[in-house]
Amino acid sequence: MKMDLNSDLGESFGAWSMGDDAAMLDIVSSANVACGFHAGDAAGILATLKAAQARGVVIGAHVAYRDLAGFGRRNMDVASSDLVADVIYQIGALQGLARAAGTAVKYVKPHGALYNTIAQDKRQATDVINAIKAIDSSLVLMALAGSPLIAWARDAGLTVVAEAFADRGYTPQGALVSRREKGAVLHDEKLIAERMLKLVRDGVIEAVDGSLVRVEADSICVHGDSPGAVAIARQLRQRFEQEGVKIASFTA
Amino acid sequence: MKMDLNSDLGESFGAWSMGDDAAMLDIVSSANVACGFHAGDAAGILATLKAAQARGVVIGAHVAYRDLAGFGRRNMDVASSDLVADVIYQIGALQGLARAAGTAVKYVKPHGALYNTIAQDKRQATDVINAIKAIDSSLVLMALAGSPLIAWARDAGLTVVAEAFADRGYTPQGALVSRREKGAVLHDEKLIAERMLKLVRDGVIEAVDGSLVRVEADSICVHGDSPGAVAIARQLRQRFEQEGVKIASFTA
Amino acid sequence: MKMDLNSDLGESFGAWSMGDDAAMLDIVSSANVACGFHAGDAAGILATLKAAQARGVVIGAHVAYRDLAGFGRRNMDVASSDLVADVIYQIGALQGLARAAGTAVKYVKPHGALYNTIAQDKRQATDVINAIKAIDSSLVLMALAGSPLIAWARDAGLTVVAEAFADRGYTPQGALVSRREKGAVLHDEKLIAERMLKLVRDGVIEAVDGSLVRVEADSICVHGDSPGAVAIARQLRQRFEQEGVKIASFTA
Amino acid sequence: MKMDLNSDLGESFGAWSMGDDAAMLDIVSSANVACGFHAGDAAGILATLKAAQARGVVIGAHVAYRDLAGFGRRNMDVASSDLVADVIYQIGALQGLARAAGTAVKYVKPHGALYNTIAQDKRQATDVINAIKAIDSSLVLMALAGSPLIAWARDAGLTVVAEAFADRGYTPQGALVSRREKGAVLHDEKLIAERMLKLVRDGVIEAVDGSLVRVEADSICVHGDSPGAVAIARQLRQRFEQEGVKIASFTA
Repeated sequence: MKMDLNSDLGESFGAWSMGDDAAMLDIVSSANVACGFHAGDAAGILATLKAAQARGVVIGAHVAYRDLAGFGRRNMDVASSDLVADVIYQIGALQGLARAAGTAVKYVKPHGALYNTIAQDKRQATDVINAIKAIDSSLVLMALAGSPLIAWARDAGLTVVAEAFADRGYTPQGALVSRREKGAVLHDEKLIAERMLKLVRDGVIEAVDGSLVRVEADSICVHGDSPGAVAIARQLRQRFEQEGVKIASFTA
Repeated sequence: MKMDLNSDLGESFGAWSMGDDAAMLDIVSSANVACGFHAGDAAGILATLKAAQARGVVIGAHVAYRDLAGFGRRNMDVASSDLVADVIYQIGALQGLARAAGTAVKYVKPHGALYNTIAQDKRQATDVINAIKAIDSSLVLMALAGSPLIAWARDAGLTVVAEAFADRGYTPQGALVSRREKGAVLHDEKLIAERMLKLVRDGVIEAVDGSLVRVEADSICVHGDSPGAVAIARQLRQRFEQEGVKIASFTA
Repeated sequence: MKMDLNSDLGESFGAWSMGDDAAMLDIVSSANVACGFHAGDAAGILATLKAAQARGVVIGAHVAYRDLAGFGRRNMDVASSDLVADVIYQIGALQGLARAAGTAVKYVKPHGALYNTIAQDKRQATDVINAIKAIDSSLVLMALAGSPLIAWARDAGLTVVAEAFADRGYTPQGALVSRREKGAVLHDEKLIAERMLKLVRDGVIEAVDGSLVRVEADSICVHGDSPGAVAIARQLRQRFEQEGVKIASFTA
Repeated sequence: MKMDLNSDLGESFGAWSMGDDAAMLDIVSSANVACGFHAGDAAGILATLKAAQARGVVIGAHVAYRDLAGFGRRNMDVASSDLVADVIYQIGALQGLARAAGTAVKYVKPHGALYNTIAQDKRQATDVINAIKAIDSSLVLMALAGSPLIAWARDAGLTVVAEAFADRGYTPQGALVSRREKGAVLHDEKLIAERMLKLVRDGVIEAVDGSLVRVEADSICVHGDSPGAVAIARQLRQRFEQEGVKIASFTA
């Protein structure tokens, strides 16, 4: 058995640092690297790419709305011509830096508000799909498990990887519990590890109502933006390894 | 006989337009396309790249300091780690958009203050050279004719193209007359065309003191940021064609 | 009889110019001056403020979402704590520049997507109202005639000025015809002038279906972003003056 | 005896936090608050201003070059018309937010590269002085002790406060030891406190060569960007209080 672990990295900007990229690169098999629109300056991105390359971690482009002040977390009504070009621009910039770091971009994972919007909104989803096809149709799209985006992208000819979130609660329908509701975010390291182990083995997660919901996931997202988050991710990796679940990129 | 004509394009940004890209793409053989740091938003850049591709105009990356408000015209004391990565980022972004437009980036021409600084400043020149080598050492560097940058870049293994400026005055030493002095900028369409014809035929330009100065140029820069500038460029092309000088990229 | 004419000014940015501020300042009585978030750099804003001061044109703060690339025209889901502070920041910045220009900010007119959103959306409307009250509750709010915003702002204690748009079509209900529909934008100088004259005299505008709709407007917005727009505004002013309608700020 | 302690605050930006403003506001009497050009988003600045107001800490505008990616630490060759207007814009924005927080801006302290440049460069120094005079000539300028800027600003009619740096080494001439040289930055809490106590009592600091150099300082700058820096500042305040040196703004 094997599973991919991914995390958002390269999110420092100028004098501001965010997350512990070095620690996370020892844990994950896939790095969603910021491309400068929600976070990441070129020098910091390059350093993260070199560190990822040294550890054999696979690189994804963490593309976002152009919104540094909002960290890409605010919904924006971006026209298709802009959104398509903005996504191509970001992927291209990361490809250039990856080449300089001796590695290459293998997948695209939209960030924040763009991630949530295209999971459900066909117009913006189509823009992102068209952007990927225009620059390199062999790039894999990483999408929310269970979302309509997955079929839209596959129908358009893209390879899609579905992801689950290690520290998020799920509804009985397999959706993420809204952050405004109870049970949205989990904090117990051991519980999180056991839930994800069950996901790998049985393809199910225990929903907030206690029922088991089927989630088809090829990758698990872990966070690294606080010492507690790093500890959760490390515990998850250790439990997986104890139980014989290999941590490996979906490209392996 | 043949000569390359290049111009700065793709310099609109959002709601603000600049220059007449369509007109200039009918005149030049090489387009220095903005990469988003001094000018250019992704959608506008993509549109310019598609128009250039349709006309067979060769693409260069017009990389700059990160300074939208100053249009990349202000000297900035950027650390090497930042400058190298910023240049790679911009080239990569343009490569991505060029791929989407069915074309490719063939050369790099630094813009504004960065152009002037690296013509003389070895530290920043080395940063730009290292950036080009890190992303794609087959990219040609376009540099100011007569500047020390040319030898530095060639010594580092890059192919270099030297450029002259159609509408600028030259000192007897072959340098550009400072914009603060008389004779820095020429406006007479016919005079400009004749001067450049002489450059192509004899390799010399008449300096401000009337002497002839040798200028080794593989490309001539023309501007398109005003109706007058477009007219100068058009006249230059017509005179060249009348006299049997073919307008063609240095890559041809 | 008198009427206020207002226009969006100070919208150049760095090397990019927009609109003919000098021409418009001879036409209007109120200048909605950009504050740097959708357009306007400090030096350009200061120049516009000095020109407005010299002509006795009254100054308003044209506050916007933080979106230079989108010119403030894209809807953004900005949290209240950010929106309140962003609006205060912009008003304060313009007040500082106005003081340096020997004038003062008298009113606030939100721009673009923010303008349209707060006309109908109570949460964001309340944020803008709270921002104005926090920095200076004597500032007048300029709002879309007929919109719910007007009552919200008056209930909160603000003075409100309602505005009509000279070159826009109106529905029989007094709303603006959507830009996606026929009749949204008018181009006939004479027709526009006569419509606005009727508005001043009778308080009505002819709607797209030929019916007369009551519009309570204290100010008329004219545009200056093209030579045609300037001509429309100039014709409007001339007709008003011919007919004895004085062009004067609502503060006069 | 009394002395002012000042610190750079409000330097978080969007999702990125920097420094422990709450801790520092219990230590200092003056807060140099970022204005958005090198750091600080409006909501974060407003929160810092409210916290400063609650503790009676005096507010200064920490104006900077427009360079978020470089945190205002890179020299920029900004034209006078831009620099004057950019400084006015920043002061005005902070004044607006300060008004909303129930407080007011009392002084201006340039940041980073602008601070260092105007200490010696008369052209840019004059621009900053002119900006302050244009918006409010009663604002105090905080400047490097011993720098030519002090006389330039006083000659222009401004009130100037000179500052020393608690954790920096001094040359025998009273200048700061360059960060590239040994002895530039001190880390010993007790040593720093004793040095500053001597400065308050005797007006001298021990230079790197062991000699005593006279430094005329009305304020001492302490940092808060790391737990170690906060501890140094806290120790300094405690020693001052033990020895009967009152911590109070220079405005008191």
